[in-house]
Amino acid sequence: MKGSIDSPSTQQGARGLRRSILLTMLAAVTTMLAALPAFAGSDAEQFARFKDATQWGAPAGDLNQTRYSSLKDINTGNVKDLQMSWAQSTGALRGHEGQPLVINDIGGKPMMIFISGCPDMSKCNIVQALDLSDPDHPVQAWSYLKTSGRDESAVPRACCDTVNRGGSYADGKFVFGTLDGYLIALDAATGKEAWVVKHAHPDKGETITPAPIIVNDKVFIGFGGDEFAARGRVTAYALADGKKVWEFYSNGTDKDIGLTANSNKAHPEYGVAGKELGTKTYPGDEWTRGGGAAWGWYAYDPDLHLVYYGTGNPGLWSPSFRCGAKPQTQAACNNGDWDNKFSMSIFARNVDTGEVAWVYQKTPFDQWDYDGINEVILVDNIKDTAGKAHKAVVEFDRNGFAYVLDRADGTLLHAHKYVTTNWAEKVDMKTGRPVKVAEHSPLMPQANVQACPSAMGGKDQQPASVDPADPANFYVPTNNWCMELNPQERSHTQQGTVYVFANVYMYPEKPGVTGKLKKFNVETGKTEWEIPDQYPNWGGTLTTAGGLVFYGSLGGDFRAVDRNTGKVLWSRKLSSGIIGNPITYSVKGKQYVSILSGIGGWIGLPVTAGLDLNDKFGAIGATAMTKAAGLNHIPQGGTLFTFRVGG
Amino acid sequence: MKGSIDSPSTQQGARGLRRSILLTMLAAVTTMLAALPAFAGSDAEQFARFKDATQWGAPAGDLNQTRYSSLKDINTGNVKDLQMSWAQSTGALRGHEGQPLVINDIGGKPMMIFISGCPDMSKCNIVQALDLSDPDHPVQAWSYLKTSGRDESAVPRACCDTVNRGGSYADGKFVFGTLDGYLIALDAATGKEAWVVKHAHPDKGETITPAPIIVNDKVFIGFGGDEFAARGRVTAYALADGKKVWEFYSNGTDKDIGLTANSNKAHPEYGVAGKELGTKTYPGDEWTRGGGAAWGWYAYDPDLHLVYYGTGNPGLWSPSFRCGAKPQTQAACNNGDWDNKFSMSIFARNVDTGEVAWVYQKTPFDQWDYDGINEVILVDNIKDTAGKAHKAVVEFDRNGFAYVLDRADGTLLHAHKYVTTNWAEKVDMKTGRPVKVAEHSPLMPQANVQACPSAMGGKDQQPASVDPADPANFYVPTNNWCMELNPQERSHTQQGTVYVFANVYMYPEKPGVTGKLKKFNVETGKTEWEIPDQYPNWGGTLTTAGGLVFYGSLGGDFRAVDRNTGKVLWSRKLSSGIIGNPITYSVKGKQYVSILSGIGGWIGLPVTAGLDLNDKFGAIGATAMTKAAGLNHIPQGGTLFTFRVGG
Repeated sequence: MKGSIDSPSTQQGARGLRRSILLTMLAAVTTMLAALPAFAGSDAEQFARFKDATQWGAPAGDLNQTRYSSLKDINTGNVKDLQMSWAQSTGALRGHEGQPLVINDIGGKPMMIFISGCPDMSKCNIVQALDLSDPDHPVQAWSYLKTSGRDESAVPRACCDTVNRGGSYADGKFVFGTLDGYLIALDAATGKEAWVVKHAHPDKGETITPAPIIVNDKVFIGFGGDEFAARGRVTAYALADGKKVWEFYSNGTDKDIGLTANSNKAHPEYGVAGKELGTKTYPGDEWTRGGGAAWGWYAYDPDLHLVYYGTGNPGLWSPSFRCGAKPQTQAACNNGDWDNKFSMSIFARNVDTGEVAWVYQKTPFDQWDYDGINEVILVDNIKDTAGKAHKAVVEFDRNGFAYVLDRADGTLLHAHKYVTTNWAEKVDMKTGRPVKVAEHSPLMPQANVQACPSAMGGKDQQPASVDPADPANFYVPTNNWCMELNPQERSHTQQGTVYVFANVYMYPEKPGVTGKLKKFNVETGKTEWEIPDQYPNWGGTLTTAGGLVFYGSLGGDFRAVDRNTGKVLWSRKLSSGIIGNPITYSVKGKQYVSILSGIGGWIGLPVTAGLDLNDKFGAIGATAMTKAAGLNHIPQGGTLFTFRVGG
Repeated sequence: MKGSIDSPSTQQGARGLRRSILLTMLAAVTTMLAALPAFAGSDAEQFARFKDATQWGAPAGDLNQTRYSSLKDINTGNVKDLQMSWAQSTGALRGHEGQPLVINDIGGKPMMIFISGCPDMSKCNIVQALDLSDPDHPVQAWSYLKTSGRDESAVPRACCDTVNRGGSYADGKFVFGTLDGYLIALDAATGKEAWVVKHAHPDKGETITPAPIIVNDKVFIGFGGDEFAARGRVTAYALADGKKVWEFYSNGTDKDIGLTANSNKAHPEYGVAGKELGTKTYPGDEWTRGGGAAWGWYAYDPDLHLVYYGTGNPGLWSPSFRCGAKPQTQAACNNGDWDNKFSMSIFARNVDTGEVAWVYQKTPFDQWDYDGINEVILVDNIKDTAGKAHKAVVEFDRNGFAYVLDRADGTLLHAHKYVTTNWAEKVDMKTGRPVKVAEHSPLMPQANVQACPSAMGGKDQQPASVDPADPANFYVPTNNWCMELNPQERSHTQQGTVYVFANVYMYPEKPGVTGKLKKFNVETGKTEWEIPDQYPNWGGTLTTAGGLVFYGSLGGDFRAVDRNTGKVLWSRKLSSGIIGNPITYSVKGKQYVSILSGIGGWIGLPVTAGLDLNDKFGAIGATAMTKAAGLNHIPQGGTLFTFRVGG
C-alpha cells in the first residue's frame, strides 16, 4: 500500500479523457485494497503512526524492529551542533535498557511516555508522561507507580538486572509490564489504570523485563526467568480489557507449544507435530523447568499475520542434566534427541490463534547460555546465495551467528559469524544445525571449557538497527569477550531459586577493547567498519536518514556516527553508563533524539547490585568483566536526555 | 594585597632610574607584607587559591561567601550558546543542596570533588573525584562511601531533607560531614581516609548537613537538629589529624558559649558575660535542648581572625514553652528576659580560641521558626546611613530582614525588609531588636496566627551572591509565601525525637508565584529587579564578571540572567528540581559552569520522602506548599550537569 494517486491534471483539453482514466484507476485501487488483509483497529492505527516519522510509536519505532527513522533534520552536516535540550530523571537508579515512546496526539497533545528501572518495589517501574507541547521544556502530565500488591521477591529473582525495556501504545492505552509480573494498561491521557493482569509469577522464577507489543488488538508479551527454572510462555491479551486470548509455551506437549500439522511445513527438519519434541528432547520432567523464556524483543508482520520472537536458554547451565544419552558424550548429546526444544529458537506464530507457523532452533542442546532472545528484525529484499530476494527475519544471536531466514516459511538463507566464535565451525545450511566444536563445548560437571563468545553473547539484548532501503547492512553493538565455563553438579530443582550450576569466568578477547559498534552485512558476512570501545556496548542503535547511527556506551558516551564511514561525528558524556536505546522524533518541525542513561543490565549488575568485584564468578561471570572494563568507576543513574541541533 | 607590580619598562634611556624606583617599590611592598597577619599553612594555600578564578576552592568559592567569579569567558554576549558538556550521576536520589569543588592540582591533575545526598545509609554521602584533565570528558578518579558504623536513624532525624552542602579542601585533604555525624578527611588524591571523627550524634537529634570550612589549619563545623531538641554547638578540629581544638555551644553557661569580658565590647546591649544569658533567658532547663544549631554556611575573615556563622531556632515551635513570664503575654515574653540566647544570632568567634568577639541576636524569643542560619557574606565598603564605609557582614535572614553589620564589632548598619514581612514593623536600629507585631506573633497553644514570611523564610539556606566590586547589590533567591502557625501543647522533652509541637500551614503570597530571584540593594532596601517563578527558589546563585547571575529553580530550570536587567538570557530544563548552587571554573582556558540537580530540601521533602500531599500540615507545612507549587510533578534526581559555550 505504498502507491499513491497523483492529482489529476486540470489542463483543459484533456480533462474528459483524464477523468475517465482516473476513475478506472480508482476502481483498480479499491479492488486492491479489498484484497489486502483488513487492518483491525490497533493495526490500522499503529501502522499509520509508523509511517509518520515525527512519532516513535513502538518500542523499536515500528513493529518490524528496524529502529530506523526517515527524519534527516539532524544529519552528518549539522550533528556537530547537537546539544542537550532537556533532561528528566526517571525517579529510580538502576539499569535502564528501554526507550520512550512519542505519540503526537494524546488528549490533543504530543506526549512522551517512559518507564524507570526497578531498584526496589518503592520505585519499581515508575511511568512518566511528558507533555511535549513546548518541545524544549516538557512538563510532566502524569506519573504512575503501582503501589499495591507488589512483590519484593522479584528483585533478587531478576537474573540480569531489574531492567524494563519499555511499553507500547495503541487505542489510547499505554501498556507495560512490571518486574514483579503485572501487565498494566493505563489511560495514556490520564495515567489511570484501564486494566491490570498478573502475567508472570516471581515464585516460579518469572519476571517481566521485556516490552510488550500490540498486534491486531492484542497485547503480546513473554517474561524472563531461565536462570530461575522458569518455563517459557508467551501470551496474547485483548487490548480492550486484558482478557487472555491465547497462550503457549516454548516447551511441553505439542498442544502446550501450539505445534500443529500446519507448523514447519516447509521445514520438517526443524521439528514437526506428533513427536512431542517439547517434552521428549529433555530428559525426564526437565521440560517443566525447561527455560526458553521469551524475554527479548518481539516483531510483527501484519501481512503475513505472524508474530516473531526468540526463546532463551533451556534452564540450568550444566548441560549434562539436560541430556538423556548414556553415556553422555558430546556426540550422543548432540544427535538431535536432546535438543531441549524449543529453547534457543525463533518462533513465528499466527497473531490471532497463536499457532506455530514455523520455529527454528539456533542452538540445539545449549552448552554456553547462548540465550536466543535477541531482536528479530524484519526486512525485505534480502537476497539468498542464489540471488533471490526474500522477505526476511534477521537475528544477531548471542551464539555469534547472524541468522537470516525467510520470514514466511523459516527457510535459512544466511548464517555468518559476526564476532569471534569458536564453539561452532559453521551452521549447516541444509539442516540448519550448528557444527559444534567439542573442544569449546562444556558438558560434564567440573570440566572447565573455554569458548567464544562468552555467555553474554556476541551481542546481548541491545538491539541493532537497519535502514530498510539498505536491508543487508546492520549497525550492531557487539560484546567482544570470551569465557571459561565450568559446569557444576545440580543441588536442587526448585523453581524461583537460582538454577544455573556453573562457574563462569569472562574476559575481554583483547585487553582494552570490550565492545564494538559494527556495520555488518548479513548477506556477505563482511564487517564494513567497526568502532572499538573500552567499554562493553549494552545499548541499542538508531539509524536515520540523516546518514547517522546513534548509540551509547557503558562508559556513558552517547555518540553519533557517520553510517558510511564509521567516523564518530559527535559525542557527549552522560550521567551514567548507557544501556538504553536511542529514539528520534519531531515536534513543531524540530527533530529531537532521546536516550536513557543508567548503568546496569547483566554486565552492569555488579554495579547496580553492589557485588564484590573480586569474586570472579559473581553475577554468573559479570563481576570479572565489570572489573576488567572499569565499570566500578561509572555511577548508577536513571536519566532521560534529549538533544537537538542549535540554540 | 590586591595591588600588583607592573613589569618594568625596558626602554633603554630610562632603565637605570626605573630600576631604582622599582627597587624602592619592592621594598615598600615587602614592608607591607610583613605588617599583615602571617597566613598559616591552610590559610596561605587557600587564599592563594581563592585569587585564582580558574578554581572553585571552597563551598562558596572563597571564605567570604560572595559566590562571585571574575571569569568572563561566558558572558552576556555568548551565554545563549551555553550547552551541556557532560553530566555525572551522584549515585543517589535525594535533595542535593551542595556544590562541587574544583582544585587545579591534586596529584598533578585538575580535579572536581562532590558529594551525594543521602536516601539511606547504603548511598549516604557518596563522594566522587573526577579527573578533569580532559575537561569535556572527565573520568572518575575515585569514589568514597563510608561503609562501617553508619547510623540509619539519622535519616528520619533530618528534619528538612537529608542533604549535604559540600566539602572543603586544603593541604591535600577533602573534608566533609556525613548525615549520621561523621566528619571525614580524605586524601584528595586517592580517596583514602586520612582521619574520621564522630562530630554529631543523631540520638541527640544532631545530623550533619552543612559544609565544613577550613580556617587557619582547622576544620570548622556545626550541625542541624533544632527540630529534634538538639543543643547547638560548633567545633574546630585540627586539619592535620582531626583532634578537637575548641568547641562552644550556642546556649548554656557563659563558659559553654565562650562569652568573655572581651565579647560584645562595642555592643553590651547584645548581651555580655556575667549574666549567664545562655541559661537564664530560657525557662528552667530548656537551654539543654535549646536549639541554636549552626547548620548553615560559615565565613572567615583572616585579617580580623574571625569566623562568622548564624544559629538556628531555639528548639520547639510552641513559643510559650520557651517563655518563663507569668502570665505569658506577648509583651512579657518579649521584654528581653526570655530571648533564648543565643539562638537566631550571628556569631563572630576568634578562629584560634573560639572566644566570642561579638554575637547579635536577630530574632529574640523566636515565635515563627525564623531559623537564623542563612549565609553570612563578607563584603567591604558598605556605607552606613551616614555614608561611612564598613567592612561588613550581610545576611538575608529567614525573618525577612536583610541585616548589614560591621563585621569587626557587630554594629548594626542596615536592616531592610527584602520580602513581604508582617511579623515586625522594623528593626530598632538603636537596640538591634525587632519591633514585633502581636497580631502576627504566635504564642499560646491552639491560638492560630498568620504571619509572613512563612517558617521557611523570605529565603532559606539557598545562598545569595554578590560582586565584591558592587558590594551593596545582592542576587537573592527568595521564597514568597506566608503561613498560619498554630502552637500545640508539648508532650515530651526527649532529644532525638520530633520536637516541634506546632501545626503549620503554608501558602503562596500570590497564587502562581512561589519564588523570585531579586537584585536587592542592602543599603537602600530597594529591589532593582525581580524574576517571579512558578516554583520556589531553593538553590543558590552565582555572580560572574561576565555580567551574569546563574541560578536554578525547583522546577528544574537552570538559568543565566543579565545582572543589569534581570533578563533571562539562557535556560535549560535539567533532570530534577534544582536546590544546588552553581559554580564556575576554567580548565585548559575554557570556562565551565556546574550545578547539581535533585529536588529536595525542606520544601522538597514531601517529594523525597514520599509524604501524603493532602496532609496540609505535613513536613511542618511543606506538603501544602509542595502541592500548591506542583512539585509532585518533579521527579527525584541526583545529577551534576556541566556547561560550556560552543561545540
